[in-house]
Amino acid sequence: MSKSPKIAIILSGNGVYDGAEIHESTMTMLAVDKQGGEYELFAPDIEQHHVINHLTGEETDEKRNVLVEAARIARGKIKPLSDLDVADFDAVIFPGGFGVAKNLSDFAFKGADCSVLPDVENTIKKAVSSGKPVGALCISPAVVAKVLEGVKVTIGQDQETADAIKNMGGNHVNTSHGEVTVDEKFKVATTPCYMLDATISDIANGAENVTKAVFGMIN
Amino acid sequence: MSKSPKIAIILSGNGVYDGAEIHESTMTMLAVDKQGGEYELFAPDIEQHHVINHLTGEETDEKRNVLVEAARIARGKIKPLSDLDVADFDAVIFPGGFGVAKNLSDFAFKGADCSVLPDVENTIKKAVSSGKPVGALCISPAVVAKVLEGVKVTIGQDQETADAIKNMGGNHVNTSHGEVTVDEKFKVATTPCYMLDATISDIANGAENVTKAVFGMIN
Repeated sequence: MSKSPKIAIILSGNGVYDGAEIHESTMTMLAVDKQGGEYELFAPDIEQHHVINHLTGEETDEKRNVLVEAARIARGKIKPLSDLDVADFDAVIFPGGFGVAKNLSDFAFKGADCSVLPDVENTIKKAVSSGKPVGALCISPAVVAKVLEGVKVTIGQDQETADAIKNMGGNHVNTSHGEVTVDEKFKVATTPCYMLDATISDIANGAENVTKAVFGMIN
Repeated sequence: MSKSPKIAIILSGNGVYDGAEIHESTMTMLAVDKQGGEYELFAPDIEQHHVINHLTGEETDEKRNVLVEAARIARGKIKPLSDLDVADFDAVIFPGGFGVAKNLSDFAFKGADCSVLPDVENTIKKAVSSGKPVGALCISPAVVAKVLEGVKVTIGQDQETADAIKNMGGNHVNTSHGEVTVDEKFKVATTPCYMLDATISDIANGAENVTKAVFGMIN
């Protein structure tokens, strides 16, 4: 492992119902920093699938951009995902949130038949082909399973999502709060976070544990 | 101290430049949960002063509501600040972000001559009059100083803000990362967080330390 691992963290907006889950994103940044790593943030420069009023749960008629909204979590320090060169990093981590299933892919609408944003697919494939670990929290492991046929992941215990992962050729392992599933062949580490009914401390633990597993697989 | 302290956390939007600072808000929730407390989130149901594109730093022509945006940090579990009855809680904590100085008050524009949202002023005064501690992170101590004449607070080391606090009748103490200033008479605990050039681990430490000080002053 290099002295100070460089981690690319990929965000999908800002807010659980239409973007990146805020606690998972923040806790991933904290986990990388606490464990001696450095991170840079990336998000696709595309329009959000839609905008959800997080107070009412209802769709609004607004338009928002994934990169611009993710910049709120990033305090402005974020780059378009198209600028990410995996060669510059030691690992890639995907926090969760519906943005992963609505903006980075259409898994929320098409399940196992989903398609994945080309920049996301290429990022995952390039990491794997260059022996760099990929971490994924919450619903993100489903997108990783779509890209990497046969990968072993966890999204917790949700049967419908687990079935979709199996239908995409993946292996799903049931887990509980803070637990991490590691696929050593693909170097993929996953943890359920808010795919379970979790507290914010559970999210901190999950982010810490998956980051530790990712760091442990860096050459 | 009651067995599981109940803390009201007051948010001012969602995003450092026009709302609540996301890391400070998240880390405050984590600190309360980790230290055995319970929290409920509140935000005023008002229009944001303005909307800043966090990628470019420029003002946009959008309109957003403070409560609706704060609901993104809260995953939907948040109430209007007008519903907060301080009697139901053991303490109140204000994370920072420009939203505190733009939405909860107009400190960002008027400095020492600012006015504070009545619901915010009443919340602080009611906490103090009923002997309940108030915690404040980042720029929030300036608003507390406007409401509580003579209070001792810290916002770190920014001279202009420290001078404004003195002009409002407050006492300012210079501090560094993670340090907490306690006014024992008013039961006010404050910490600088992103008023300094801080890492996300510094924010976690600051939130943890100020929450510990708040918990220590609960009867």
